[in-house]
Amino acid sequence: MKTLKKKLILDCDPGHDDAVAIMMAGNNPELDLLGITVVAGNQTLAKTVNNALKVTQHLDIDVDVYAGNARPLVREPMYAGFIHGESGLDGPVFETLNKEARPLHAVSFIINTLMNSDEKIILCPTGPLTNIAMAMRLEPRILEKIDRIVLMGGSYGFGNVTPAAEFNIVADPEAADIVFNSGVPIIMCGLDVTRKVSCYQNIIDRMNALGNTASTLFKDMMEFYNKNQKQVFGWDGGPLHDPVTIAYLLDESILKLNHCHCEVDTNKGPSYGRTNCDLFNMQKKKPNVHVAVDIDVDRFWDIVEKCLKHYS
Amino acid sequence: MKTLKKKLILDCDPGHDDAVAIMMAGNNPELDLLGITVVAGNQTLAKTVNNALKVTQHLDIDVDVYAGNARPLVREPMYAGFIHGESGLDGPVFETLNKEARPLHAVSFIINTLMNSDEKIILCPTGPLTNIAMAMRLEPRILEKIDRIVLMGGSYGFGNVTPAAEFNIVADPEAADIVFNSGVPIIMCGLDVTRKVSCYQNIIDRMNALGNTASTLFKDMMEFYNKNQKQVFGWDGGPLHDPVTIAYLLDESILKLNHCHCEVDTNKGPSYGRTNCDLFNMQKKKPNVHVAVDIDVDRFWDIVEKCLKHYS
Amino acid sequence: MKTLKKKLILDCDPGHDDAVAIMMAGNNPELDLLGITVVAGNQTLAKTVNNALKVTQHLDIDVDVYAGNARPLVREPMYAGFIHGESGLDGPVFETLNKEARPLHAVSFIINTLMNSDEKIILCPTGPLTNIAMAMRLEPRILEKIDRIVLMGGSYGFGNVTPAAEFNIVADPEAADIVFNSGVPIIMCGLDVTRKVSCYQNIIDRMNALGNTASTLFKDMMEFYNKNQKQVFGWDGGPLHDPVTIAYLLDESILKLNHCHCEVDTNKGPSYGRTNCDLFNMQKKKPNVHVAVDIDVDRFWDIVEKCLKHYS
Amino acid sequence: MKTLKKKLILDCDPGHDDAVAIMMAGNNPELDLLGITVVAGNQTLAKTVNNALKVTQHLDIDVDVYAGNARPLVREPMYAGFIHGESGLDGPVFETLNKEARPLHAVSFIINTLMNSDEKIILCPTGPLTNIAMAMRLEPRILEKIDRIVLMGGSYGFGNVTPAAEFNIVADPEAADIVFNSGVPIIMCGLDVTRKVSCYQNIIDRMNALGNTASTLFKDMMEFYNKNQKQVFGWDGGPLHDPVTIAYLLDESILKLNHCHCEVDTNKGPSYGRTNCDLFNMQKKKPNVHVAVDIDVDRFWDIVEKCLKHYS
Repeated sequence: MKTLKKKLILDCDPGHDDAVAIMMAGNNPELDLLGITVVAGNQTLAKTVNNALKVTQHLDIDVDVYAGNARPLVREPMYAGFIHGESGLDGPVFETLNKEARPLHAVSFIINTLMNSDEKIILCPTGPLTNIAMAMRLEPRILEKIDRIVLMGGSYGFGNVTPAAEFNIVADPEAADIVFNSGVPIIMCGLDVTRKVSCYQNIIDRMNALGNTASTLFKDMMEFYNKNQKQVFGWDGGPLHDPVTIAYLLDESILKLNHCHCEVDTNKGPSYGRTNCDLFNMQKKKPNVHVAVDIDVDRFWDIVEKCLKHYS
Repeated sequence: MKTLKKKLILDCDPGHDDAVAIMMAGNNPELDLLGITVVAGNQTLAKTVNNALKVTQHLDIDVDVYAGNARPLVREPMYAGFIHGESGLDGPVFETLNKEARPLHAVSFIINTLMNSDEKIILCPTGPLTNIAMAMRLEPRILEKIDRIVLMGGSYGFGNVTPAAEFNIVADPEAADIVFNSGVPIIMCGLDVTRKVSCYQNIIDRMNALGNTASTLFKDMMEFYNKNQKQVFGWDGGPLHDPVTIAYLLDESILKLNHCHCEVDTNKGPSYGRTNCDLFNMQKKKPNVHVAVDIDVDRFWDIVEKCLKHYS
Repeated sequence: MKTLKKKLILDCDPGHDDAVAIMMAGNNPELDLLGITVVAGNQTLAKTVNNALKVTQHLDIDVDVYAGNARPLVREPMYAGFIHGESGLDGPVFETLNKEARPLHAVSFIINTLMNSDEKIILCPTGPLTNIAMAMRLEPRILEKIDRIVLMGGSYGFGNVTPAAEFNIVADPEAADIVFNSGVPIIMCGLDVTRKVSCYQNIIDRMNALGNTASTLFKDMMEFYNKNQKQVFGWDGGPLHDPVTIAYLLDESILKLNHCHCEVDTNKGPSYGRTNCDLFNMQKKKPNVHVAVDIDVDRFWDIVEKCLKHYS
Repeated sequence: MKTLKKKLILDCDPGHDDAVAIMMAGNNPELDLLGITVVAGNQTLAKTVNNALKVTQHLDIDVDVYAGNARPLVREPMYAGFIHGESGLDGPVFETLNKEARPLHAVSFIINTLMNSDEKIILCPTGPLTNIAMAMRLEPRILEKIDRIVLMGGSYGFGNVTPAAEFNIVADPEAADIVFNSGVPIIMCGLDVTRKVSCYQNIIDRMNALGNTASTLFKDMMEFYNKNQKQVFGWDGGPLHDPVTIAYLLDESILKLNHCHCEVDTNKGPSYGRTNCDLFNMQKKKPNVHVAVDIDVDRFWDIVEKCLKHYS
């Protein structure tokens, strides 16, 4: 009997919200998490790899971690320490790390896993798209092995690191351009919906009430995260961006999607890294992205809670 | 005794919503409308001038009309016939036109009026900023004679003719760049607020109930306008963009403003003409624009209604 | 009998080589110099106007001077003091200035002169194209009154203020874009030929031997000019850029021209202001510029010498 | 005793002039050709790989060939069939191909060879820089293993596929940007010098007189090449671009170099792919490229002839 578990590779740059995404994808009976590939983004590669290892070790998630690209495809690196702190995952205190990244480049892991699989596999990127783009260029035959790409990134409204652009895309616009033009089905979970899932204190309290390792980690992380979100954006509850991807995989009905043309701005002006989504089809170009335009907020938090219950 | 009337020049490209702005600014005891300058935009200059003449003649508004630039400063012209129809003001039937534009270039009228005035004057542009920008470059001394510029244009969210840009700005991005960097106080009424004042059928009915020439013209124009808005954007009530500027002049409390840095994207990529507003001051640049971020919708319609009552 | 004199307006930003162009166009029985319009460029407008006045007063040239735009159409101003010195015309000592610019904007003079002329008129710009571009936009009907535009500017090879661009064009790329796309016949005398007319010491000596006011002024200016050219570019004889335009008007056989498509780069990257001339017609676009690709150097100096002989 | 042979990897996209470069680098007692890596460029990857195999088989050069990237890093592919013909190496007739490319990606070969070498190795790219750039991003530690990069590409004057850009750079400007900013010493042999080594018929005759397999191949290739160069550019002798790199490795005195800042234009305007070389250090930026500004043409042909004598 064929398994009903969705096979996926999580490509991330933890990061607080990435860590919640790992938490949700790990130990999950509905998902077959084939590996966690890591990229520079919220912090340097050394730090984001460390954070992926810490979270999976702490929560005892049985998955291998692979280090990928230490810098974006073309542009100079940028990080988001102003949100995620010096370590990229400030807040919680972790035990000494004894888990190590596997000695294989994340790009090679992605290529090998896809080329050796009989089934199509879902890619779930929650950081800059450097690893995915490079894999596509090095081995174009992987394109037909990718089931779809469910990513956190972009915004058709305003951005969060520039007035035009969202962090994951502006941190590597050329990689995003490659991925968005790859022909692979893409579900883009951008700020337009992720800003609606604000992690207010009552949400933290609700999760914390579960009383397990995951819920405690959730609380420790989110309280730090919210402090910075408040300081930078003036918001009481920080948007839980990355977990929207995993929640969507678990229940596709939570997002309302608009299938349209989306072009990443790769010009080096003030809109560098913007995802221009033609929601009204004014440009009559071929749709290439399913853009999330609304989210069922209540259902989202129910899914997060359900995922956290998989831990003890 | 010094008059309390606000002196203004209305620079427009009628256009249905421009026509409502003319209606509101004309015959208004609180405003001293010094002249109407016209620019190409919603349609060609010949058509927008004609429309300004038709509206002022039809409503018997005692104001001179001046024809300005027939094309944008640098870029190729673009028009908005898909919204405003072949004439730029399709819908109403006007009597034969016997009013003529004054034989003075709009740019000269703007320069002369400002240079000859003891008081500062408000500029209220509801079309592309070509006339204003050219006046600023030809005679830089006008800058200190401008009280402020209350304009309809831009969007910090998504656009209405491209995914990134609003029509008035993308129709002449270089002119907008000049105006936004002029040092003159600017109030930007962009799609972010104008999309909130949707002219639903009940609004049309409410205005029509006034039973005067202005209210009938309002009805005839808005019913055509709404038909196109429905077809292009799928909306039931078209946003009444341009009148927000005049409403603001009559009651500044209707808008919530954010004083921030705003940069027009003049790169010829997919975000050409975008107004990047740094609402969260992440780029630590000097504020140059008061960006409207919210509007009191009920109060807005009250003001429109009050203005329409000035006609018989 | 119809005059055979070529009617022209000289639009310049003196500048040493502009001053030589004035010298050559002034007092010239073959040319009808209708006016000198001035633009900011090599130095600020106040200085370039002053320099035009000084040169025409000193040489007793009977021509009016009109002040134009003080800054470029869109971009921030840039000047070339590193070549032309603090005054824009360092070197010679002039008598006290008692000539004044006419109280009419250069753009208005250009428009009025063209619109009131029965014959077509040549425009000869040797500075940034701001005045010309603005005149074209304010009064598009002048286009058919312009016989042709013989300009100094651009380079299809490398630039002189950036690796990509020549000063007159990069100082106002948007104005150049307007002029190059105006449909008016354009002869572009760029660095590709002007760098070939190096004003070595033997040339200075030859001109100086004429022993009149013009030849002395030539010597005083060129010796200062060459000093800076040596320091900046390492060259012994500075290229006498602007006079190539007047020399061409006096003897068209001195230039070899290539009629091709030329596009000004208005992107704000490292090639901003570059004139991309498709000499080999690889892009199959419509030719819009006659680009000078070679010059008869000996004949050029003969023409300069002949012009200087018109002074006493 | 340590070998004095220069170790190099030749990264190419044959291409007629690439083929001559292979001919010169192969069977050469002064060079240790570690491998030939191939990239898409003058033609598709399948064709350029085939051409590398054909040439090395035909001339019995004992070197392995590795296939690399089938398309540029970011941009859409472009080819140069208008110069090199349908096969990418039209003209000569080759025997049936029985040599095969090694089953290892060119990027992996480059990374492995560098990481496993005790000595630094020279990279000699004569095609788009895709393979080199991707190797640098995948394994940044190779940077300190690269002795220098001697490349054919770029132009500080005018281009050969657009008015601004040379083929190898414009075919992958983002890759060039990565390589030029890598910190590795770069010798750029651009059109500025390669256009000076025109392969006139007398050169073909001189080489053909050697009467060996290499000289016959040279003749067959160059006669086809010259036909297209004549048609496209109007030149009698096509520039032998790529061999300048190998000639320089064999005798560094043939090139005059200018160590300066060079920036690749990655803006998607008319100058996309231009190499802006600041020869006069006007921008005061750190030098990153040794740009060839002149070449000893006679010495160059002597070197080519000497190389061809290595064949029988």
